[in-house]
Amino acid sequence: MSKIKIGLFGFGVVGQGIYEVVRKAKNANAEIVKICVRDPEKPRKIQADKRLFTTSVEEILDSPNINLVVEVINDPDAAYDIVKRSMLRGIPVVSGSKTMLARHLPELIELQKTRHVALLYDASSCGSIPVIRNLEEYYDNDLLLEVKGILNGSSNYILSRVFDHAEPYADALAQAQALGFAESDPSFDIEGYDSLFKLVIITVHALGTYVAPERIFTYGISTIHDSDIRYAREKGVKIKLVAQVVKVSDEHFTMFVMPEFVTPDKYIYSVDDEYNGVVIRGECYDRQFMFGKGAGSLPTASSILSDIMARLHDYRYEYKKMNYVQKPGYTTDITLKVYVRYKETDIHNILHFDKIREQYIGEESNYVIGDILLSELMDKRSQLSGRDVFLANIPIFFLNRDR
Amino acid sequence: MSKIKIGLFGFGVVGQGIYEVVRKAKNANAEIVKICVRDPEKPRKIQADKRLFTTSVEEILDSPNINLVVEVINDPDAAYDIVKRSMLRGIPVVSGSKTMLARHLPELIELQKTRHVALLYDASSCGSIPVIRNLEEYYDNDLLLEVKGILNGSSNYILSRVFDHAEPYADALAQAQALGFAESDPSFDIEGYDSLFKLVIITVHALGTYVAPERIFTYGISTIHDSDIRYAREKGVKIKLVAQVVKVSDEHFTMFVMPEFVTPDKYIYSVDDEYNGVVIRGECYDRQFMFGKGAGSLPTASSILSDIMARLHDYRYEYKKMNYVQKPGYTTDITLKVYVRYKETDIHNILHFDKIREQYIGEESNYVIGDILLSELMDKRSQLSGRDVFLANIPIFFLNRDR
Repeated sequence: MSKIKIGLFGFGVVGQGIYEVVRKAKNANAEIVKICVRDPEKPRKIQADKRLFTTSVEEILDSPNINLVVEVINDPDAAYDIVKRSMLRGIPVVSGSKTMLARHLPELIELQKTRHVALLYDASSCGSIPVIRNLEEYYDNDLLLEVKGILNGSSNYILSRVFDHAEPYADALAQAQALGFAESDPSFDIEGYDSLFKLVIITVHALGTYVAPERIFTYGISTIHDSDIRYAREKGVKIKLVAQVVKVSDEHFTMFVMPEFVTPDKYIYSVDDEYNGVVIRGECYDRQFMFGKGAGSLPTASSILSDIMARLHDYRYEYKKMNYVQKPGYTTDITLKVYVRYKETDIHNILHFDKIREQYIGEESNYVIGDILLSELMDKRSQLSGRDVFLANIPIFFLNRDR
Repeated sequence: MSKIKIGLFGFGVVGQGIYEVVRKAKNANAEIVKICVRDPEKPRKIQADKRLFTTSVEEILDSPNINLVVEVINDPDAAYDIVKRSMLRGIPVVSGSKTMLARHLPELIELQKTRHVALLYDASSCGSIPVIRNLEEYYDNDLLLEVKGILNGSSNYILSRVFDHAEPYADALAQAQALGFAESDPSFDIEGYDSLFKLVIITVHALGTYVAPERIFTYGISTIHDSDIRYAREKGVKIKLVAQVVKVSDEHFTMFVMPEFVTPDKYIYSVDDEYNGVVIRGECYDRQFMFGKGAGSLPTASSILSDIMARLHDYRYEYKKMNYVQKPGYTTDITLKVYVRYKETDIHNILHFDKIREQYIGEESNYVIGDILLSELMDKRSQLSGRDVFLANIPIFFLNRDR
């Protein structure tokens, strides 16, 4: 157990949090020895010793004094470059870049094996909630049936304001941005991509299979209307943006990100504001619920600290489930029950429903509730894009699950 | 990674669950090769191959074919004997016996070191909720401030029936026994000892310090009256049996088990029925909440399975926090605000309050609300025993915390 000497890439909100947290953890036996940033002169909330800063990636990668790279930069391409180069040089990495990870995990898992170098990234999914580590270690068996949750704090904050405080969507969004929960370009959060990337990472550790983001149906909350909110309220449910991966049989699992009608008896019903909540369901332990702050400077930084400390003990993910002999495969051949609200769009001309259960035509808007194949939604995703259509999952036991 | 061959001690509710779960986990690479029971002929819900049974402890300990002992027997003395003998022979152990562990942890930790043999026991605290593992690994730093929760399902079930369903205490207790949540001798659960033993184990992994059970103030729910329930209802709170360990300064922590008035804004307020819920609070990540089934055959067995699988990868607890240079020490020199309801007992003759905030004298019962040292409660614990006195913590920021 030698001391961890960190080369830190990125000194934004999370990077500054890591600086704080490492200083506070007196028993951590870790030290930040170099910080690589684009602009050392940029005014920052937390000041670090000027001598720590560098603008040169090489200065960190070449330093014999550094035995861990911690990467928390926003640009996924730059993150990929740094992570890969570090690993190729045999320097272990702790990363928080979910977009980068969701895109490049197969290659980075291979690199870990061939180069015998660790890559940890618990902070990339749900900030301070230890989802990845628990899926990898504690739920290290094939009893796992489902991981489902609210993985994005910004969109959840907005939906909370809208539902619990009756604020207009636009006001809620503006407030989320003002509070720093939502990015200046909020589409990443509210269109579901942030949740999607986390779900991709989670699925690798939950079921041992990587599914590329573009193969997963993802629908956000930006088209939500007052009429959708009113409808949900009348039915006594809340609308939440939910990501889920579900084993539908011994042979198959499915996964998707979309708004969902959540009934009050569900754990995630009471996950409000910027919080995250994850339900882990297994064959023998029923449902476990983990709840906490999914984002923010210090919560994310404390998760990064957990990964840093794990390196003190040479911890690495083993991806044990990837080697399981019997492993379920990904399918979109599964029927969902969905609510689709529309007005101008001739929705029946786009979507083919297996069965229509309700059809409402009103002055303000129309909706249809029906059974539809997930593969059909995938196929028509691009045709729905940009239209004034809102779509929500109405959870049922999958209609055509094969047991 | 060789195959795990298990010698199982105990084939009661949990033992049978383990048998089921190991069979279900197809990728587990683990097998139960021998089961030691007192009476192989006893009728059991789940049947195992007769040839697996033995009544001889030696047959398991002497078997070169067995590389893991799993111990889930009720008698703590017998459990201690088996665990110790296994470890002395160099056979790693997975144990679920909280009473035994809470009493003997220091010796068993020493044995792990000197004999280089692993002892895992995640199932001993909160069944399927991975509290120990997360405290040991994920919260492996000194940012942790508090672990607080509902650790006993039986007493929580009873309080739930009483509060949410307005059932008389005696009926709720009888129902809990009928459902198998409460033992035939329910004092272990309802007097708080089950929670206490779990808290002792949790504290070793939370703060790196073992505190013997007899040094910890423990008060149960058996003396609860209608008037207490009415009082709590009027104040809009629920009474829960809560175990907690709290860092009160950089130098000190305190811990106790007692009924508590829980306000609706607290996570544990909605932990009902036989469920467990644990709040982990840290300096940077605020509050994390873990929720799930704390007991029962399969949930406990699935937690045992996690420990079994961990042995496939030679996992062992490192007790890293025990080696921290700056470690807080245990104190009872801390002031609590408590509600004490009494009738015949002259409570003011027994308990010395630092400050009395409220005093109520009624026809049915009396109560006092005041500030009192935890050490004073400890000193007078035996004098309160057997009396018709109910006591509940009213959470405040500790009055004399030194920061």
